[in-house]
Order: sequence, then structure tokens, then C-alpha cells
Amino acid sequence: MKLLLLSNSTNAGEAYLDYPKYEIRKFLGQAPIEALFIPYAAVTFSYDDYERKVNERFAEIGHAVTGIHHFADPVDAVRNAKVIVVGGGNTWKLVRMLYLNKLILPVREKALSGAPYLGWSAGSNVACPTLRTTNDMPIVHPIGFETFNLVPFQINPHYTDSHQQNHAGETREQRIEEFLAENRKTYVVGLREGTMLKYEDNRLCMIGERKARIFRFGCAPKELSENDSFDFLYE
Amino acid sequence: MKLLLLSNSTNAGEAYLDYPKYEIRKFLGQAPIEALFIPYAAVTFSYDDYERKVNERFAEIGHAVTGIHHFADPVDAVRNAKVIVVGGGNTWKLVRMLYLNKLILPVREKALSGAPYLGWSAGSNVACPTLRTTNDMPIVHPIGFETFNLVPFQINPHYTDSHQQNHAGETREQRIEEFLAENRKTYVVGLREGTMLKYEDNRLCMIGERKARIFRFGCAPKELSENDSFDFLYE
Repeated sequence: MKLLLLSNSTNAGEAYLDYPKYEIRKFLGQAPIEALFIPYAAVTFSYDDYERKVNERFAEIGHAVTGIHHFADPVDAVRNAKVIVVGGGNTWKLVRMLYLNKLILPVREKALSGAPYLGWSAGSNVACPTLRTTNDMPIVHPIGFETFNLVPFQINPHYTDSHQQNHAGETREQRIEEFLAENRKTYVVGLREGTMLKYEDNRLCMIGERKARIFRFGCAPKELSENDSFDFLYE
Repeated sequence: MKLLLLSNSTNAGEAYLDYPKYEIRKFLGQAPIEALFIPYAAVTFSYDDYERKVNERFAEIGHAVTGIHHFADPVDAVRNAKVIVVGGGNTWKLVRMLYLNKLILPVREKALSGAPYLGWSAGSNVACPTLRTTNDMPIVHPIGFETFNLVPFQINPHYTDSHQQNHAGETREQRIEEFLAENRKTYVVGLREGTMLKYEDNRLCMIGERKARIFRFGCAPKELSENDSFDFLYE
């Protein structure tokens, strides 16, 4: 299996998908690839616009995507894909559309068969067993909570340490602690913006200058960097 | 119907339930009341601790609560209740427990019959038709998305205008815009901390020094104060 799971598409103030583009090229290789793009997390803009935005950046690194919405049979499109790319947006909308189009199992099988899977934000969240560590508002019923289950842990994308002053709402860490209280055996990787997880050759590593924060019930959170091993997440 | 729906239990830096206590006394009246307390939104602390915390403040205003977890038959407890109090915490856990205990309809019927309903945060969210405007992490499957449906609009509790600098995640307003794109006929009330909605004598009003921000698909958001009428939310 080959996975590249980004916390976010874009760092604040930068061009769309700019910060990870060279890592994406390294992940996909030099030979031009036409990847299948799943834009279902888009809510306030069209799938065509989303595809165009991704292609602008992919063109810079010699690759391209085609939106799954152009195919009459989405399951077939997944079966014939060489690479799966799942964009961010609203996780609930994404998961609902995946269920409506019966894509959960086909995408999982495709990734297990070795086709590279690239996701960012909601697209990284759905690589996990469930959507239960999303930050998004549940604007639609997702039909199911189970997602692709390509990694045995949960990712919290856009992980942040900051908390608004004079605001009584929960911090991100408190939200994850609530998750752990109800899901005691699951690791959660708080993936800060600008960082990503890569799984290749049966090894999991983190890429990026900031550390990842690893949570497990009953354990003090751990801060791990690019130089640390992440393989314990598979134990 | 009599509803008091608070954005939050507690303003940052203040004692638990302190800011709304006099409004709660006004809402419940002078005669001492033993209210039924639903503490199911608690995740990282016990129902007993939660009940104790609420009773500390209620004692100051001459009232008391009894947690529903003390009753062998929760449906019966609701049917016999004089007042329903639903505390905040994690909305998903709260809704799951409400479904597991088959309480959605009994609480709705109780409130429709005229028993005062007091909620804060998650407890205000579940007074709405669905949980779809919660800010909470979906740490458990809620069984259903439909909630008490005591008001015809959605509340977003802890509504905030602020956004972390250099963070690419969505602002609260963007999240609500996503909700509206998928739920075009529903009003959303962004209820800022320190404010509450009160429904009494067939009138809805807002209480608090900050304004509420009202959202509807295709309309510019409106800022309304204590002095404005909120009755249009029922049109």
C-alpha cells in the first residue's frame, strides 16, 4: 500500500496545494499520471472548479487528475484508476457521497491492491477507520461512519494548539480527549498544518517541519518529528 | 412551550453556570423546583459530578436538579418531570444516550405539554430539529441525527467570529455557509457566548449583551440584539 495523507491542502496565505507539491511529485513518480480525483467534499463550489484548481498545481509537477463526476459508473472508474486522489472540504458530504455511490469498499480494495492513495484534510480523515476525528460540521447525514480503513489509527487534520482567548468552547486537545474516552484503544495523530504522513514500503513516516502530536487514552500526548519512527501506530 | 436555550454554561474565567443564573431563576420562578437533569453529554467526568456542579449553582437560586441516571426508568422520569434541564458537553454522546434510552419523543412531548425546558450548549443544540450545527467532534455514533425539534431553526452554540491567524481550517461562518448550502430552508442562529434564547408566551427573544448572528441561504447574515424581534424565525 502507498499512502500520502496531508493535514491540509494549503497553508494560510499560500497558493492552493503549493506546499506539498514536490512531495506529491515524489510520491507519484516522474512518469505522467492521470489520477482519479474524488471531489465530493466540495460544498460551496463545483466539482469542475475543484478539479481545475487541483489540475493547476498538478500541471506544475507533470501530472493531472480527472474528476470521478465525469464517469457514468463511479465504481468502474475506481476499479480502472491508477491513482486515487481525495480532496478536502466537508468530511460529512464526502462520506455521504462515497456511500451513495457505493465507493467505500472499491476504494479500499484499490488502495490495498497497491494503487497510490493521496488525500488531504477530509481526504486524509477518510483513510482512517472512521470519520470520528473530523473537525467539520455535520451538515448532512453521512449514511455510515466507517470509512476506508487504510490505516489502523485516526488522523485529526488541521491539528492546532491554539485556542481563542475568552472562549469557553473546547480546545482541540479536549475534543480528542473526549474521543479517547469513548475509543480507548485507538491512537489519534494530531497532524499539524503543513505536515503529512507517508506510508510506503511498509513503513509509516511523517514529513514536515512541525511535530505531530500523538494521543492515546491514559497516556501523556507525545510530540514526534520527521526523525522519529511512527511504526508503533501499527502495533 | 417554555424554552431557555443558552449558548454556553460558563463564560471563560467565571464560575460554572454563573452568568445565566438569574435568568434561570426568572425562567423557573421563585417556588423551589426539583428539575430533572439530563447529564448524558458528559464524557470525561461522571454524571454524579456533573449533577453536583449544577446543583451548586442551582442552590444559589433556590432550585435543585436530580440526574436522570438515578432513575430505573428514564422514560418514566421524563414523564413525571416538572422541568427538563439538559446540560452541555459532547452533543454526539448526548444524542446517542437519548436514543439508547428512547427519550427523544418523551422529552419532546414533555416540553410541548408546557414543562419548562432549559438547555445549554449541546442541550440547546438538541432543542433544534437536528444536531447538524454542533461544533463537537463525532466521538460516537449518535444513532439518529434528529433531535427534540422544539424550535424550527438551528442554533450554533458558542458562535464565534474569531479565527486563528495562519490557520487554514474553516471559520465558523464558513462552516455554517456549508450547512446552508445543504439545508437551504433552515435558519441558523449563531448564538454568541454569554447570550441565550427564550421562548415564552409564544414569543422568542434573545437575552444578552452581544448580538446574535442570523444566517439563511442566499441572504446576507443579520446581526440582531435584545431589542429586535426574533419571531420571523417561526415564519
